[in-house]
Amino acid sequence: MTFEFDRDTLLEPRGDGRYDADLAPGWVVGGGVNGGYLLAMIGRAIAAELAAKAPAKAHQDPFSVSAHFTSAAVPGPAYVQTELVRSGGRFSTVQARLVQDVDGVPVPRIAAHGTYGDLDSAHDPASEAAAQALGIRLPAPVLPPPEECFESRDAPPEFKKIAPLLERFGTRFDPAYAMWSVGQPSRSGVIQGWFKLADERPLDPIALLMVLDALPPVTFDLGLPGWAPTLELTAHVRAKPAPGWVVVRHATRTVAGGLFEEDCEVWDSTGRLVAQSRQLALQPRPV
Amino acid sequence: MTFEFDRDTLLEPRGDGRYDADLAPGWVVGGGVNGGYLLAMIGRAIAAELAAKAPAKAHQDPFSVSAHFTSAAVPGPAYVQTELVRSGGRFSTVQARLVQDVDGVPVPRIAAHGTYGDLDSAHDPASEAAAQALGIRLPAPVLPPPEECFESRDAPPEFKKIAPLLERFGTRFDPAYAMWSVGQPSRSGVIQGWFKLADERPLDPIALLMVLDALPPVTFDLGLPGWAPTLELTAHVRAKPAPGWVVVRHATRTVAGGLFEEDCEVWDSTGRLVAQSRQLALQPRPV
Repeated sequence: MTFEFDRDTLLEPRGDGRYDADLAPGWVVGGGVNGGYLLAMIGRAIAAELAAKAPAKAHQDPFSVSAHFTSAAVPGPAYVQTELVRSGGRFSTVQARLVQDVDGVPVPRIAAHGTYGDLDSAHDPASEAAAQALGIRLPAPVLPPPEECFESRDAPPEFKKIAPLLERFGTRFDPAYAMWSVGQPSRSGVIQGWFKLADERPLDPIALLMVLDALPPVTFDLGLPGWAPTLELTAHVRAKPAPGWVVVRHATRTVAGGLFEEDCEVWDSTGRLVAQSRQLALQPRPV
Repeated sequence: MTFEFDRDTLLEPRGDGRYDADLAPGWVVGGGVNGGYLLAMIGRAIAAELAAKAPAKAHQDPFSVSAHFTSAAVPGPAYVQTELVRSGGRFSTVQARLVQDVDGVPVPRIAAHGTYGDLDSAHDPASEAAAQALGIRLPAPVLPPPEECFESRDAPPEFKKIAPLLERFGTRFDPAYAMWSVGQPSRSGVIQGWFKLADERPLDPIALLMVLDALPPVTFDLGLPGWAPTLELTAHVRAKPAPGWVVVRHATRTVAGGLFEEDCEVWDSTGRLVAQSRQLALQPRPV
């Protein structure tokens, strides 16, 4: 069987660093295509370009991907134009731009860079022992078990109609920060829960790029349910995830000047921090 | 009088988006040229390119600059090659690459994107009133007054010889997290203090890009005093700083897998958060 995520991020190499894509309608949410899905598409193109241009190095894992969102993508044909910036011993950096043609004019949707390497060989044993002794490790939040959380697929049909994205996920929201769904936001600026893909597709480093922008904006929990367009999002993948549920936490600490930053962390089923991101997004207008 | 920062980030436009620079030896620290100084150089080139290509829009303030560090820069000639990605109504995005020629071969030092706009007109009054009512604002840490902090220019001469950068700054370190200077790191993973430029050059949004990477790596406070090369750093400028000292705080929450993330926040003299960043850096090897 082919999982939805793999089918919908399929790329066709066209030479000269170009990879053709088809943005699937199933990843639409409100006014555009989900940013995490687009980030994973870019992440896959970067891995493909590195496999083509520097195959001996096996730099297939994203360590950092930074993306500037320049216009809203729409479902349909798109392409990722990549260019190898530099391939070093431990890391390689690729520039990647997601583009859609509009009336024959190429319109950039996302301008990105990715620095890739090999997550399995990123550290030496002495450094890892020193790091473990330090004990500087952000712990996962304690959540109620998944069966006591709110399931996103239980959303009302009229909401799912404008957010088909919800059908892709098996998200279970922590009820403590999910009461915005019944008009009672906690006003903490936090959204967290358990996450998996609806069709149980296992998560890997590329899929984590998608997980980092899979939940609704934290402004929902602040009583601002509007569209919160991302200006920029940078993802850091810290380790390969173990099988099973991941825990995802989003929080903002500063809403000011028309903008807010949203930090996201992802822990795997062993409690290890596997990915984190920060995005700068536009504050939704009050309704 | 010309301030050091302005003199040392001077750019000469060469057409086709290229800006020639000269990396000044005064910004060297240990094995390379300070990353914040290079980020400000790139930030200035992006502003110059936007002034040239989209002058009517007045998008002169960096909102987000993300930079992937691909090799260590050295003092001497360099250039920033820019390319306008997209100029929209509120924001414009530019790609910028800092390059140095090595034996006639162009070697990329930093691959970056910047999204710029106008910090004075980024928000409407209704949104700002809503944001103020929410009260989601990260407060500055409480520090001892500057005269009770450790002054970086008091470092021993043999240290300043390998870190001429220290002469540029008037940093005053909070003693609670500065005992690494006498071999007693707090092991909290925090470094914070007051910051100004040594020659009192006022801070502005471009200079804040430099401030975000001006202090030593937080790994100093973890008993790991080695070189901590940055893989990637993303800066968000949230407001124009008021005159006077700024407070700068660096912290890490996860040292693992050979890497650590370092978050930085900068508050101005009114207590407003004016800039923040996160970088992913290589964990120094234990000594």
